[in-house]
Amino acid sequence: MTPGKTLQSLHAQVPLVHCITNYVAMNIAANVTLAAGASPAMLHAPQEVAEFVPMAGALTINIGTLSDTWVEAMMIAAQTAQARSVPWVLDPVAHFVTTYRAHVAKDLLAQRPSIVRGNASEIIALAGGDGAGKGADSGDSVTDAQASAIDLASRTGCVVAVTGPVDFATDGQRHFTVRGGSDLMPKVTALGCSLTALVGAYAAVTSPLEATAAALLHFSEAGERAARSCQGPGSFTAAFLDQLHALHPDDLDDGRMIWL
Amino acid sequence: MTPGKTLQSLHAQVPLVHCITNYVAMNIAANVTLAAGASPAMLHAPQEVAEFVPMAGALTINIGTLSDTWVEAMMIAAQTAQARSVPWVLDPVAHFVTTYRAHVAKDLLAQRPSIVRGNASEIIALAGGDGAGKGADSGDSVTDAQASAIDLASRTGCVVAVTGPVDFATDGQRHFTVRGGSDLMPKVTALGCSLTALVGAYAAVTSPLEATAAALLHFSEAGERAARSCQGPGSFTAAFLDQLHALHPDDLDDGRMIWL
Amino acid sequence: MTPGKTLQSLHAQVPLVHCITNYVAMNIAANVTLAAGASPAMLHAPQEVAEFVPMAGALTINIGTLSDTWVEAMMIAAQTAQARSVPWVLDPVAHFVTTYRAHVAKDLLAQRPSIVRGNASEIIALAGGDGAGKGADSGDSVTDAQASAIDLASRTGCVVAVTGPVDFATDGQRHFTVRGGSDLMPKVTALGCSLTALVGAYAAVTSPLEATAAALLHFSEAGERAARSCQGPGSFTAAFLDQLHALHPDDLDDGRMIWL
Repeated sequence: MTPGKTLQSLHAQVPLVHCITNYVAMNIAANVTLAAGASPAMLHAPQEVAEFVPMAGALTINIGTLSDTWVEAMMIAAQTAQARSVPWVLDPVAHFVTTYRAHVAKDLLAQRPSIVRGNASEIIALAGGDGAGKGADSGDSVTDAQASAIDLASRTGCVVAVTGPVDFATDGQRHFTVRGGSDLMPKVTALGCSLTALVGAYAAVTSPLEATAAALLHFSEAGERAARSCQGPGSFTAAFLDQLHALHPDDLDDGRMIWL
Repeated sequence: MTPGKTLQSLHAQVPLVHCITNYVAMNIAANVTLAAGASPAMLHAPQEVAEFVPMAGALTINIGTLSDTWVEAMMIAAQTAQARSVPWVLDPVAHFVTTYRAHVAKDLLAQRPSIVRGNASEIIALAGGDGAGKGADSGDSVTDAQASAIDLASRTGCVVAVTGPVDFATDGQRHFTVRGGSDLMPKVTALGCSLTALVGAYAAVTSPLEATAAALLHFSEAGERAARSCQGPGSFTAAFLDQLHALHPDDLDDGRMIWL
Repeated sequence: MTPGKTLQSLHAQVPLVHCITNYVAMNIAANVTLAAGASPAMLHAPQEVAEFVPMAGALTINIGTLSDTWVEAMMIAAQTAQARSVPWVLDPVAHFVTTYRAHVAKDLLAQRPSIVRGNASEIIALAGGDGAGKGADSGDSVTDAQASAIDLASRTGCVVAVTGPVDFATDGQRHFTVRGGSDLMPKVTALGCSLTALVGAYAAVTSPLEATAAALLHFSEAGERAARSCQGPGSFTAAFLDQLHALHPDDLDDGRMIWL
């Protein structure tokens, strides 16, 4: 399925995406997912996630802000997704900055996500390497993370996406890059987390690798268009949501994706 | 009191509205309430809600994102509002999707809210019917929910508002519709939750039925105006807050409300 | 160091700022901090804050929305900052409205923040006076709070900043005002909380008093510029982030700060 056809499926199905994400990202991730054409649902009580995950087309888990009950719910949700074959996406935000979140990321990775999306420092560290990240922002380039991404994908069976100025994704055997977006994007908080939610939306309608491609293209195309009509990170955000919403399936088939 | 006079009272009194709402909605609900002319206060610790509720002009409780300590605080707050005659508004977000939230909604409804605001699927399910909702978005039309709303209002003594392309509200005996808004509004997350906060703001200055009418009119008018000057859901949100803030009392008395 | 030079340092160092803030503020505070040129990190698990605080250039703690585990993390974070000489900023949001939050504010103040930022009612009450505040909005003027601010600064050794239409800051001996901003700013939720995060960003690169000056100037200048090109509180927010991002160091040295 081409990325354009994948967006067509998204628009036709309006999949329900169960997002367990951080407090900073919740609103913008929901808005990104809605604007792109899916239906996000944010819920995280340990009492209800096992009941809800099987109703969703996909699950996304982002560890940006943690506490014990959230971690408990994340584990139940991931296990349920795994058991019920619901595709799920892991976003291991800044997992290397504390022991606590490193353990959480490792435990979640053991639940075999369909897709892992992170910045270069996060993917390098998740593959066992030593990156230069210090907080939520990457200290490494996407190119530096390619070998780690391929290694991680090969070992775990996940699709791994490393996002940055030029994105890179791999299932361990096939790899591609996506160029586009805008250098204002790292100046808006939680856009990476929002991309994770969008990857989840697409994972509800196609295979992990095709879902990743469509989400990265949708994001990059909308970002590049939004940057043309904005004055800074504040007006960019509004324009970006407008463009995510306005894009036609044909707009995703324009050559900004390159198979390596 | 006409809706215009009600807005005048809101502007004159700047009521303090205690909002216990979900993580996705917190920021936008506070911004909607502030833009419209009230003063929102978000706090939810079980240790402090009983002390705070009596200081507020109204309380709103939205169950979008739950966990045990939040549910505990919601119950204390609702009981306090009931005991101290503080008007309060219940927003039973997606209460039918899990057993856990169904119980929470039922327990809160037993605390006799002044007003219940929900989408069609939520109101149908709250009245005991079988709706087509799957997540936070409605799967039913407002018209389909009218009988349920009237039934629920009659049985509980609450005003019930069902919102959608054309809103419907009832106290069990008197019913009205409000048309307006924009089809972009369901593409922006948590606008329904934000409307609940605004209903609360108005409930601090007038009766539940008049408060509901004024809030629905304020929202619909601002939404319709905002849609004229925007390019999509991102620019809509900014324009909507601008319009909520700019509306004059006279703007609410324009005939978009019809008594049935 | 002049305010302009301080902004230059901020841009050169891109300090990591650990923000423990309320749910309403998280997204906008992160966006303000990013737009201004720093790198915010939001995390609050009691298990990880002691490990993270020493990696950050500064810590900010805002008590807007509380619960037990958050309070536990705030105390650990403040103690760690104190022990490891990491500058930290306290924002005692509406601390006087309930007994619970009054205790939290008092306990945190005992951990000797480098800077306290609040509105007039909050600072008056923190210094032991009787203000007219009722919720998160101030009921007192900044001028009314000057004596309280000086008293509080003298007794605690903190820099105290009272923000409002004209801001006032003091280390107990030196005092200054900053004029600017826009009367739309109180119509946007959590801008005060976001200013606290920005004060933290600057505290990572210079002394508490200079950091406070630079942050107040950056905020006031951006607010005044944003107000010129907006139609209300919604479009103001986008324009404000754009202006925070666009300001040059020279823009902060323009005379809107007056030493008393």
